[in-house]
Amino acid sequence: MIPRYARPDMVAVWSPETKFRLWYEIEAHACDAQAELGVIPRSAAETVWKARDMAFDIDRIDEIERETKHDVIAFLTHLSELVGPEARFVHQGMTSSDVLDTCFNLQLVRASDLLLADMDALLAALKRRAYEHKDTVRIGRSHGIHAEPTTMGLTFARFYAEMKRNRTRLENARREIATGAISGAVGTFANIDPFVEEHVCKAMGLEPEPISTQVIPRDRHAAFFAALGVAASSIENVAIEIRHMQRTEVLEAEEYFSPGQKGSSAMPHKRNPVLTENLTGLARMVRGYALPAMENVALWHERDISHSSVERYIGPDATITLDFALARLTGVIEKLVVYPENMERNLNQFRGLVHSQRVLLALTQAGVSREDSYRLVQRNAMKVWEQGKDFLTELKADPEVTAALSEAELEEKFDLGYHLKRVDVIFERVFGKA
Amino acid sequence: MIPRYARPDMVAVWSPETKFRLWYEIEAHACDAQAELGVIPRSAAETVWKARDMAFDIDRIDEIERETKHDVIAFLTHLSELVGPEARFVHQGMTSSDVLDTCFNLQLVRASDLLLADMDALLAALKRRAYEHKDTVRIGRSHGIHAEPTTMGLTFARFYAEMKRNRTRLENARREIATGAISGAVGTFANIDPFVEEHVCKAMGLEPEPISTQVIPRDRHAAFFAALGVAASSIENVAIEIRHMQRTEVLEAEEYFSPGQKGSSAMPHKRNPVLTENLTGLARMVRGYALPAMENVALWHERDISHSSVERYIGPDATITLDFALARLTGVIEKLVVYPENMERNLNQFRGLVHSQRVLLALTQAGVSREDSYRLVQRNAMKVWEQGKDFLTELKADPEVTAALSEAELEEKFDLGYHLKRVDVIFERVFGKA
Amino acid sequence: MIPRYARPDMVAVWSPETKFRLWYEIEAHACDAQAELGVIPRSAAETVWKARDMAFDIDRIDEIERETKHDVIAFLTHLSELVGPEARFVHQGMTSSDVLDTCFNLQLVRASDLLLADMDALLAALKRRAYEHKDTVRIGRSHGIHAEPTTMGLTFARFYAEMKRNRTRLENARREIATGAISGAVGTFANIDPFVEEHVCKAMGLEPEPISTQVIPRDRHAAFFAALGVAASSIENVAIEIRHMQRTEVLEAEEYFSPGQKGSSAMPHKRNPVLTENLTGLARMVRGYALPAMENVALWHERDISHSSVERYIGPDATITLDFALARLTGVIEKLVVYPENMERNLNQFRGLVHSQRVLLALTQAGVSREDSYRLVQRNAMKVWEQGKDFLTELKADPEVTAALSEAELEEKFDLGYHLKRVDVIFERVFGKA
Amino acid sequence: MIPRYARPDMVAVWSPETKFRLWYEIEAHACDAQAELGVIPRSAAETVWKARDMAFDIDRIDEIERETKHDVIAFLTHLSELVGPEARFVHQGMTSSDVLDTCFNLQLVRASDLLLADMDALLAALKRRAYEHKDTVRIGRSHGIHAEPTTMGLTFARFYAEMKRNRTRLENARREIATGAISGAVGTFANIDPFVEEHVCKAMGLEPEPISTQVIPRDRHAAFFAALGVAASSIENVAIEIRHMQRTEVLEAEEYFSPGQKGSSAMPHKRNPVLTENLTGLARMVRGYALPAMENVALWHERDISHSSVERYIGPDATITLDFALARLTGVIEKLVVYPENMERNLNQFRGLVHSQRVLLALTQAGVSREDSYRLVQRNAMKVWEQGKDFLTELKADPEVTAALSEAELEEKFDLGYHLKRVDVIFERVFGKA
Repeated sequence: MIPRYARPDMVAVWSPETKFRLWYEIEAHACDAQAELGVIPRSAAETVWKARDMAFDIDRIDEIERETKHDVIAFLTHLSELVGPEARFVHQGMTSSDVLDTCFNLQLVRASDLLLADMDALLAALKRRAYEHKDTVRIGRSHGIHAEPTTMGLTFARFYAEMKRNRTRLENARREIATGAISGAVGTFANIDPFVEEHVCKAMGLEPEPISTQVIPRDRHAAFFAALGVAASSIENVAIEIRHMQRTEVLEAEEYFSPGQKGSSAMPHKRNPVLTENLTGLARMVRGYALPAMENVALWHERDISHSSVERYIGPDATITLDFALARLTGVIEKLVVYPENMERNLNQFRGLVHSQRVLLALTQAGVSREDSYRLVQRNAMKVWEQGKDFLTELKADPEVTAALSEAELEEKFDLGYHLKRVDVIFERVFGKA
Repeated sequence: MIPRYARPDMVAVWSPETKFRLWYEIEAHACDAQAELGVIPRSAAETVWKARDMAFDIDRIDEIERETKHDVIAFLTHLSELVGPEARFVHQGMTSSDVLDTCFNLQLVRASDLLLADMDALLAALKRRAYEHKDTVRIGRSHGIHAEPTTMGLTFARFYAEMKRNRTRLENARREIATGAISGAVGTFANIDPFVEEHVCKAMGLEPEPISTQVIPRDRHAAFFAALGVAASSIENVAIEIRHMQRTEVLEAEEYFSPGQKGSSAMPHKRNPVLTENLTGLARMVRGYALPAMENVALWHERDISHSSVERYIGPDATITLDFALARLTGVIEKLVVYPENMERNLNQFRGLVHSQRVLLALTQAGVSREDSYRLVQRNAMKVWEQGKDFLTELKADPEVTAALSEAELEEKFDLGYHLKRVDVIFERVFGKA
Repeated sequence: MIPRYARPDMVAVWSPETKFRLWYEIEAHACDAQAELGVIPRSAAETVWKARDMAFDIDRIDEIERETKHDVIAFLTHLSELVGPEARFVHQGMTSSDVLDTCFNLQLVRASDLLLADMDALLAALKRRAYEHKDTVRIGRSHGIHAEPTTMGLTFARFYAEMKRNRTRLENARREIATGAISGAVGTFANIDPFVEEHVCKAMGLEPEPISTQVIPRDRHAAFFAALGVAASSIENVAIEIRHMQRTEVLEAEEYFSPGQKGSSAMPHKRNPVLTENLTGLARMVRGYALPAMENVALWHERDISHSSVERYIGPDATITLDFALARLTGVIEKLVVYPENMERNLNQFRGLVHSQRVLLALTQAGVSREDSYRLVQRNAMKVWEQGKDFLTELKADPEVTAALSEAELEEKFDLGYHLKRVDVIFERVFGKA
Repeated sequence: MIPRYARPDMVAVWSPETKFRLWYEIEAHACDAQAELGVIPRSAAETVWKARDMAFDIDRIDEIERETKHDVIAFLTHLSELVGPEARFVHQGMTSSDVLDTCFNLQLVRASDLLLADMDALLAALKRRAYEHKDTVRIGRSHGIHAEPTTMGLTFARFYAEMKRNRTRLENARREIATGAISGAVGTFANIDPFVEEHVCKAMGLEPEPISTQVIPRDRHAAFFAALGVAASSIENVAIEIRHMQRTEVLEAEEYFSPGQKGSSAMPHKRNPVLTENLTGLARMVRGYALPAMENVALWHERDISHSSVERYIGPDATITLDFALARLTGVIEKLVVYPENMERNLNQFRGLVHSQRVLLALTQAGVSREDSYRLVQRNAMKVWEQGKDFLTELKADPEVTAALSEAELEEKFDLGYHLKRVDVIFERVFGKA
């Protein structure tokens, strides 16, 4: 966890306080169920709930763990220090992993909920900017090269659609890890009734894991972290777009530059897209975590503990980083300074060449063969490209062209509105009926 | 593609024949739509369909591509060689990526269908072996160390449940990439009516991509290949289990060893788990492809073509390898030779120590403190561990133990049936009511 | 292996012909050593060498392998078909991996030699272009934003220096895998004298592996493929630079565009940087192979065969792809069309703002505090940025500035030569004394 | 950084205190050089050194950074608060990255030195245990299946050789990043004499970067982190071996189990290889960091800052984790409890079958054809395998065998010493002459 890339709510999900609180709730709910089954006295369960509003002494737990080298035993020992000897009924028939794994999944569920809210904020920002710039014309580019006109609104809209897909993926990922298991040392429920698992899961908002070993199967977590990796890659996608737009020669948009901010110690005129560059790096980290998560799937027999250290890193790191990245991107989108006039300037850089596709099509439709049409367009395009001529003027002066298309027909091909006529249709596809 | 790890049906999905056939169908359906819109003559569309039963000359297409350095133009040129000059109406208003991307997704859809069928076969094998060995007792292990009894059926059942989740993930992944786009050079439909996209997609079994640029967004493909990576990791999980079971000292199961097979040029007694070792390696490859797929998401503006070379590798390699791995694993599971007698031998290796957890619990329930119970169990367990004593005998001879538990109570803790009593419940969770 | 990204020499390294030829040579040299030790008859070794100029029948070997399911036995059987019954002396005391692993390393050595030659060609091209454009001024950019002037020659020179480091890494990587092992079933030389290993390695240009198990340790190969991954990432670095230079708005260079080449089926004016985009994707693949190679390091005990399937992919794929990428990049560099006039145009885009750093420094040196200097520069820079004013004119009109710097002093700060004065020094660092 | 996987010395390398101290030293040495060049007053350089023994107020620096959003300016402002207005001469002609990048490399150099020392400790432990168990016979295994005898000393020795290679790789990696750059905003030395770079680098133990841009090229760091990834994979290799040895059925060695340690809350007899399982997970993390490091290589033009966030994670995380892992592994090796008697038990599990390779060879050498020899050995081996017979007894009773080999000859093939005769030779290869 890198403090500068961490926000408090997500950090809290991974705090020792949260962890021990969740352990406690799992154990206490399990006591309720065991009492209902008659396995332990009802009074024992009630006694355990007395700690509901007590604070756990984390230093004390750590101290016990240093001696016993076992975290759950350390916690249970401390719990007995708080509520007294009836704590011996706690954890009956359970194995440490019942607590640890169910807790880890609960933390991931909470993390997911924060991430889903983050995505909602980002989606709202993208939607607002999309409608704001629905008709702001800019040149579409493939390979970094001017292609045909599009609009800034469509750019925002496609990021919206992409992030919406990530939201769906994250919902699926949340469902993947929203399970709990209280099934004992090798998952046979030998020492504990499945009712305990059902009760605890219901109380904590989880589904019982249909079949577990000592642990909850890790393919679930691999799928979870892979989904985060894909979402991070989409963040990179938006970040790269903005970085390109802010390039000196393009300058179609800029990250918001606060008055007190200094861009560089040496070049005061520079406004660098540092936020989106930063997001590009964060994306590399989050998707990098997907692989160790996949390596965690193959555990030996009913479990080995190799996954645990990995999860101590990627549980917090992937969720905290993605949470931060989503929030940062939302801020970037909300405050992005868009320059429509520069978009227009860039669009007109090659005096009409952007309309060559339409001319080509018109020639074909006028009966010229594909090969000839291509040759005619290319011949005139090259004059624009190499000699800086105006494309429409050149076409009008080319007898082979004018033999197929009249001046009026040619001029009609240079109308920008032609390219924007389906923007509304696309917006409706993305955002639904207004 | 490595021939020895490739099966013909999946290889065919990625053949030039399939690719050109799909290009053709996309173009021909597009012609139908364009004719319906009145953009091209109805007769032109009909003419194009004449090639429906013609074979494309792949060498000829390659030859044209070598000259034009453009694959779609090469294909269209060849098509006009086949059906005549009316082919000039083909591809009107479309851009190459409309064809390429829609085709790529169609190939992934077909690959998904094969993989889903593979998974069904694997699931059937796992289910059959699970019921066959529902009550075959074996020792459950955590950390590679004996823990408590479980059954071989539960092992198969959890692999079944895990692979079932992978099937669901793959269905989702299939849905992710089951889209088509015919939206023109930058996705604005400037030169083509969205109706064409709708018509082609419907005809080919795809959903129209709500908003595309020149290309279909690559977050979809990242999610797809990530799902394959998770599935591969689950294959590794099963493979590792079998490799462990086949270890000389464990020998609870073996891959089927065909009569003619030689295990080693030097050691004729060796039967090596080479199929599952092989699967372990294949899993590394398939999940390794998830990362380049994620790097493919961030394309420049309305597209760059950096994703294309990656997809030429991972499109075939990931699906062909996973297809092969699933089929190989199915064969391994179907023919796996299970040794129940060795399972029993291993289970009894430490003369009753496996029941220590039950004794511990019984002591606690008999009123002994957790710490004391632990101490009592540990003290006797160590005699078994270090001196090869029998656990039950030692417990019966320990007055502190017998002060809490009678001989009969102790003996009852050594009953194997205790551990199997919930196998049916778990099976019902996994497979449903019988 | 993707045929379009493969060159014949590297493909040949991985052909069955090469593999069997290397197996043969290893076995034949081993026979020589065994004969020298008196383990087998001298005549047997001589007989084996009779096959030196015979062609192996690969179909026949495959046929035998299908029956025996063992590749080395299949090969040896075929060898005995060629040279007669004395072939029974071949492979004595050896294990299959002695042949397979030594062969694999020999293939990697040959691959390395081709890659080193590729790098030399690339280095030569980079050096030539560096000197050609040593003094071609262009704007240096950080964050995609104009910073200070540099030269195109420095750009080529730094790619040269980077690729030179990759060459050194590749030499090290070659040394890593230039070992052979003929040490028997578990590496103890129980059945074979270490002299055989020494003899074969010497004959084949390898070092004996100091300690092997059944296999050569795979940390060597992990290091090898990691080095390829770093080299590929450097290729991406060059590719990204060129893609940026070719952007429509920048257009400081273009990939060579052959006369017959069509950039797009629809937009004839487009010249897309498709080669460097392609290289970007290839880099993703090659570095992706580093991870499975690292996962291959941890084999069970004296070996498991999980590494083998991985190496069947990445052995050929990583080396063939990198070979192709290096050659492609060399071609791109050699033929790159550089536009000095566009570089000059871009440099002057912000009328002198590029010199702000020098003015800032001059103010500080003239006794103005850092904070005040920054404020003065920023104030005038903003007028250029926001109102399109000329930077020098504005500075001359700012009394706070002119109180510290005279007109002549200000003008001197706008001299481009100032930025180029150390180009020769840097070139000497990179290329040595001319 | 995960506190439980972090050791103080390595954590200190990455503390803010260390960072600011290094920044200070870089700036102060640069002042010396600038004074020597006459660019700044000698007194200014001397004044700066006054802060040599002052403590930097990190909270104050953070406070300034929150306002200026620029870390180096914040530091320089604080420095001027400490030493007074002459601090305005600090950082002249330099750019932030000159300080940041040189500092980062210095931190990596220090980290490398700690890691090299870690490796030395590990190597010493491995060597000691290798000699201790040079002649402790155990069965060698391929595919997890018994093969031929080897010794525990050879196992330690090969880990020694592998780790020694990693040490060499780390030395190379250290050299890769032991460079500094003080070359200005785009690396042209326009505003600063290369002498400053040379002076600072010499003072800090670095090499001047031959050609930099605003930043030091990141292929160096990619190579560095890749080397850590390979080393981590070798740690996994050792860890997997120990985990296998500690398996209940194998039990040839155990991690040291301290008296107060509780293995499981439920099964007191369990001693789990938790340290090596943990190392397996840590290895996944460290090698996972290699990929983002490779993605960092391709920066835009003279730099973008996407690498920075990645390095904030992997700089500390990779080095701290590897440092911890090396130390943990050293402890595991030093205290590993080895059970020679269990090794002997395992070796004899299949009553002589382990000697089948020798018998096979002897038959061949006695003139039996390879195919017949194989058949004879296999036939008798199967009786051992399937009916639990004794191999030597069966061979003696097989007339086809005894036709080729006498009883005495057969018995000689069952001598363990045969397998150990080259242990000394191998030790000499690995450790040199004693």
